[in-house]
Amino acid sequence: MIVVLKQGANEQQIENLTRWFRAKGVEPDISQGTDVTIMGLVGDVSKIDTELIEALDIVQSVKRVSEPFKQANRKFHPDDTVITLANGTKIGGGNFVYMAGPCSVESEEQIIYCAQRVKAAGAQVLRGGAFKPRTSPYSFQGMGEDGIKLLLEAKKETGLPIVTELMAVRHLDMFADVDIIQVGARNMQNFDLLKELGHCNKPILLKRGLANTIQEWLMSAEYIMAGGNHNVILCERGIRTFETYTRNTLDLSAVPAVHELSHLPIIVDPSHATGLSRMVPTMAMGAAAVGADGLMIEVHNDPPRAKCDGAQSITPDQFDQLTAGVNSLLAAMKG
Amino acid sequence: MIVVLKQGANEQQIENLTRWFRAKGVEPDISQGTDVTIMGLVGDVSKIDTELIEALDIVQSVKRVSEPFKQANRKFHPDDTVITLANGTKIGGGNFVYMAGPCSVESEEQIIYCAQRVKAAGAQVLRGGAFKPRTSPYSFQGMGEDGIKLLLEAKKETGLPIVTELMAVRHLDMFADVDIIQVGARNMQNFDLLKELGHCNKPILLKRGLANTIQEWLMSAEYIMAGGNHNVILCERGIRTFETYTRNTLDLSAVPAVHELSHLPIIVDPSHATGLSRMVPTMAMGAAAVGADGLMIEVHNDPPRAKCDGAQSITPDQFDQLTAGVNSLLAAMKG
Amino acid sequence: MIVVLKQGANEQQIENLTRWFRAKGVEPDISQGTDVTIMGLVGDVSKIDTELIEALDIVQSVKRVSEPFKQANRKFHPDDTVITLANGTKIGGGNFVYMAGPCSVESEEQIIYCAQRVKAAGAQVLRGGAFKPRTSPYSFQGMGEDGIKLLLEAKKETGLPIVTELMAVRHLDMFADVDIIQVGARNMQNFDLLKELGHCNKPILLKRGLANTIQEWLMSAEYIMAGGNHNVILCERGIRTFETYTRNTLDLSAVPAVHELSHLPIIVDPSHATGLSRMVPTMAMGAAAVGADGLMIEVHNDPPRAKCDGAQSITPDQFDQLTAGVNSLLAAMKG
Amino acid sequence: MIVVLKQGANEQQIENLTRWFRAKGVEPDISQGTDVTIMGLVGDVSKIDTELIEALDIVQSVKRVSEPFKQANRKFHPDDTVITLANGTKIGGGNFVYMAGPCSVESEEQIIYCAQRVKAAGAQVLRGGAFKPRTSPYSFQGMGEDGIKLLLEAKKETGLPIVTELMAVRHLDMFADVDIIQVGARNMQNFDLLKELGHCNKPILLKRGLANTIQEWLMSAEYIMAGGNHNVILCERGIRTFETYTRNTLDLSAVPAVHELSHLPIIVDPSHATGLSRMVPTMAMGAAAVGADGLMIEVHNDPPRAKCDGAQSITPDQFDQLTAGVNSLLAAMKG
Repeated sequence: MIVVLKQGANEQQIENLTRWFRAKGVEPDISQGTDVTIMGLVGDVSKIDTELIEALDIVQSVKRVSEPFKQANRKFHPDDTVITLANGTKIGGGNFVYMAGPCSVESEEQIIYCAQRVKAAGAQVLRGGAFKPRTSPYSFQGMGEDGIKLLLEAKKETGLPIVTELMAVRHLDMFADVDIIQVGARNMQNFDLLKELGHCNKPILLKRGLANTIQEWLMSAEYIMAGGNHNVILCERGIRTFETYTRNTLDLSAVPAVHELSHLPIIVDPSHATGLSRMVPTMAMGAAAVGADGLMIEVHNDPPRAKCDGAQSITPDQFDQLTAGVNSLLAAMKG
Repeated sequence: MIVVLKQGANEQQIENLTRWFRAKGVEPDISQGTDVTIMGLVGDVSKIDTELIEALDIVQSVKRVSEPFKQANRKFHPDDTVITLANGTKIGGGNFVYMAGPCSVESEEQIIYCAQRVKAAGAQVLRGGAFKPRTSPYSFQGMGEDGIKLLLEAKKETGLPIVTELMAVRHLDMFADVDIIQVGARNMQNFDLLKELGHCNKPILLKRGLANTIQEWLMSAEYIMAGGNHNVILCERGIRTFETYTRNTLDLSAVPAVHELSHLPIIVDPSHATGLSRMVPTMAMGAAAVGADGLMIEVHNDPPRAKCDGAQSITPDQFDQLTAGVNSLLAAMKG
Repeated sequence: MIVVLKQGANEQQIENLTRWFRAKGVEPDISQGTDVTIMGLVGDVSKIDTELIEALDIVQSVKRVSEPFKQANRKFHPDDTVITLANGTKIGGGNFVYMAGPCSVESEEQIIYCAQRVKAAGAQVLRGGAFKPRTSPYSFQGMGEDGIKLLLEAKKETGLPIVTELMAVRHLDMFADVDIIQVGARNMQNFDLLKELGHCNKPILLKRGLANTIQEWLMSAEYIMAGGNHNVILCERGIRTFETYTRNTLDLSAVPAVHELSHLPIIVDPSHATGLSRMVPTMAMGAAAVGADGLMIEVHNDPPRAKCDGAQSITPDQFDQLTAGVNSLLAAMKG
Repeated sequence: MIVVLKQGANEQQIENLTRWFRAKGVEPDISQGTDVTIMGLVGDVSKIDTELIEALDIVQSVKRVSEPFKQANRKFHPDDTVITLANGTKIGGGNFVYMAGPCSVESEEQIIYCAQRVKAAGAQVLRGGAFKPRTSPYSFQGMGEDGIKLLLEAKKETGLPIVTELMAVRHLDMFADVDIIQVGARNMQNFDLLKELGHCNKPILLKRGLANTIQEWLMSAEYIMAGGNHNVILCERGIRTFETYTRNTLDLSAVPAVHELSHLPIIVDPSHATGLSRMVPTMAMGAAAVGADGLMIEVHNDPPRAKCDGAQSITPDQFDQLTAGVNSLLAAMKG
């Protein structure tokens, strides 16, 4: 951590600050220039609050040299995290995973049909929403617990592990047989929820918030990991920008960025990012090409009649083509 | 609601769609042009999902004519909502309220001293955080239930009603004697929390999300109101933009915008918006000048030693000056 | 175009507006609902100013049904535009082009060496800046006319056509032998420059502005095309968002979006978008996978000693690997 | 300037870098920690390119301690700049200026009527567009040179100095009798134009770009000042964000920010920022309350029939009320 002092800082003030840092267990190296005095703090500075120091009268600015996340940091854990599901599916470390299924579970027939079709096309995980975060209280809110039961039916029928979104801590019991718990974009900084998930031992799929930086996203992963649960899968799903042609702007640069900064697997959801089903296969190719560890795709038996997000769902036939295209691209990249 | 059909839509398709709308209880007026066919839907369209219609093969685009929120909508409730607290303080409808206090409760001495000082300067409500949403799991998370007890001590001592943030539904019991429950920016779309707050009869202070539009914000107010709780106070606290000089960008235009769209009171928090204590008094003046119903200000006895957000806290003396300045501006505006 | 009238609009006002539209040569179809009256305008509405209509007392909102650009619009020109350079290189229509070279021309030796290396790796066009747009007046501003002369030397030596940025109309004469004139992101809405380029018959490489929507970008292409020059190549180079890890956020969704909306070719510049050389090869793969018509890559013989943008330049050896990787991906996609 | 070296940097590399800095005339102070080595550069570092250093193998990051602008910097010029126009009007240094008039000049009658009305209401400068930057090449582009002649007529008639936008260097001759030359938001980084304006001795009104930071804006002022023209007036006119209710988001925090960083005057244009005439008077009050040095307001005799931007223009009667309200607020703030 580097602390830049204001021009007027006098010796007494600098000495006081030095003593204050030493009391916190860090030793400052002082560079005294003509215009500016710089303190380089060495030692474990992760517990020092940068905003607090910035508020001091004699401080001009503070800059962290190291990332504020530790458990999620590749520096301290150089090898890729690989998460293994009950049926042997591996996520991360060079494995490529397809999670696919409808936006929301609507009926037994629908979810089983979708599960069979996405499995046939190569998906290893079935997605489907039971609890749906909707902007309007008057929109369909999902089937709730009944939706989870239907997902478990589809799991029994096809053997596919399931991933579905948790919106409230008090629903956690219903998720006992769910394979991967999803945290939605709007809950990425619901810290109470993240802390609870740190104490469960299931894989967590953590979606990036609409307006959150990559660093904030990794800090949210850190919340889960700090509680003891190291099975976090990140999911890029588009960020909010001024562009309105697509629903959000898919930030594919986040894939190599996360791979640099962290050992956690990262998958991409082009369905929510673009909001346009016709763009999903194209952006899925892009995601695979930049090194994503997998894809999350909305597939619906009858998109125009979907209870939500029909505009971004592709059909099972289109998903067949999508996996074929992505698989041949992955094969070419492996060489 | 207006539905624009694609050029190729044939008569049979249009008739099918017409029948489908009638089944939903709305009657379409059809304008057939040479290039484009337009359906104007009349009746109660609040239950119709625009995304669903957009996904239909023959539809080019859909546009809502009326706002998707109802209870929060000034059209259906032209008079300003006025919320009255236990001690008689009124919020909204031309009353101006100061909510002030430290970012987080740190000790009995601290919170009582702050309460006395902000009361003396004219504040009608004491703010103070007991549960703190922090980006890092390693930062100070607030005193929790003990913090609430100290706030209640300060309330007893000074008579000031208190506002403090709720981060989890299961903490609700601890808030029994809290006067106003705050929903933080990061929880603005924590729909599960909003629904629960719809069933309690306390005033809710709903902060705007960092990347949420005014319409989404009013939809979150609608979640609370749809549950039966009509006592919602909105709080603008800055949005996330590309500018980095201030922590966020205070959107003062949101004040007249909310006053146009809704009858709910809106206050402004310049402390979190700018993140810079030296800018707080200036932006407080701006907020009053654009018609805000009040201010929420961080005031700390000793900002450099604050446990969080010291950089944006002003001292009690500075708060004295702030209220004096704002009061004379308000007096000049009343004429 | 659809005009939604306010609730209070009376018959006389509607009749006046109808007559006003007829005078402009468009015929309104009127849908009268209980709450709202809608006018659908049929005919050539490209000359009608939507903001003007929105300002009318009785109008609530206006929505364009068709895009405001015409010459750049795929609807009126379904086939891909293919631009052919002097040496036979084709851009657009399924051809893939590499434009590569240093950010700025620094010396004869440097530019010829770079030209030879990028040509050997498969580049068909040499890039290099002579006039450099820099945020600071104290930064290196490029070699100017001398830089163009050196580019022409490199062209003579290698046969590669050259692309370089024009910053001022009065420099146009110096660009007589330049093959493609680049308009930089900061000049995307320098309408005076765009108009002038409409009267020259050279291909124009139009970079997307940092904060411009895809529609505004196509409107800038329309400025050039309206002047008679139909040879416009679009270049996505990242947009400004709240994320700071990469310099800008590369919006790869813009590639399929432009292909839907327009017949013009679109290439991608991952160097400026990410600002990080280590990410350039990865994002180049992503660009190829989403269907870009080519890439613009900064290649410098000695990046750490480059006079500008060294942080984002790759070496000739890295460029060899980049083209090899992208070529095998393209081959797999053609399949 | 602070340079943070990577963990692996060895002594030889550090010595080489030290020698390189000394050759540039700056002396590094080195703080060697266990994990990190920090170089504090003292001396004149304004000519050192941070991006260049960041590209070095052994460098992790670089941070500027001082702002990159000098002439515009309050540190080197503590007193407010005050610009005096021919008729004695002062801008900056505690003087408050109203610049008002129609978006575009449309006829002699119109501009003279507007000039008389805004003068009567207290405006000291007449605004009016002759060259109009429009997104579409098919929209009204302004009256050009004829528009300037009409502005000069209105100046003769009323004695009001005039401000109007310059879009191209080659039009500069037509602006000989214009009092203040406006640089539009889209040209804020048209560096060629800025350089030329550095050589003219007229006051320049520099609008903030839609997606430009305050620092970039001051760097554009620096371009003009570096050429010798120190008469720069900044104008905040809204930035581009995700919010769509207002046309742009008026960033009133930019006013105190500019006052901290620079000695240049800053005025506010609420008309372009909000795009909604009904919000203009409210946001004008906010601008005055945060300490703006003036306002730029669009006033049109007949907004619904304005040739452009009618939606944001207020009437002369509304402008009378606006100045009355703002004047009483200013009086209260002084008092």
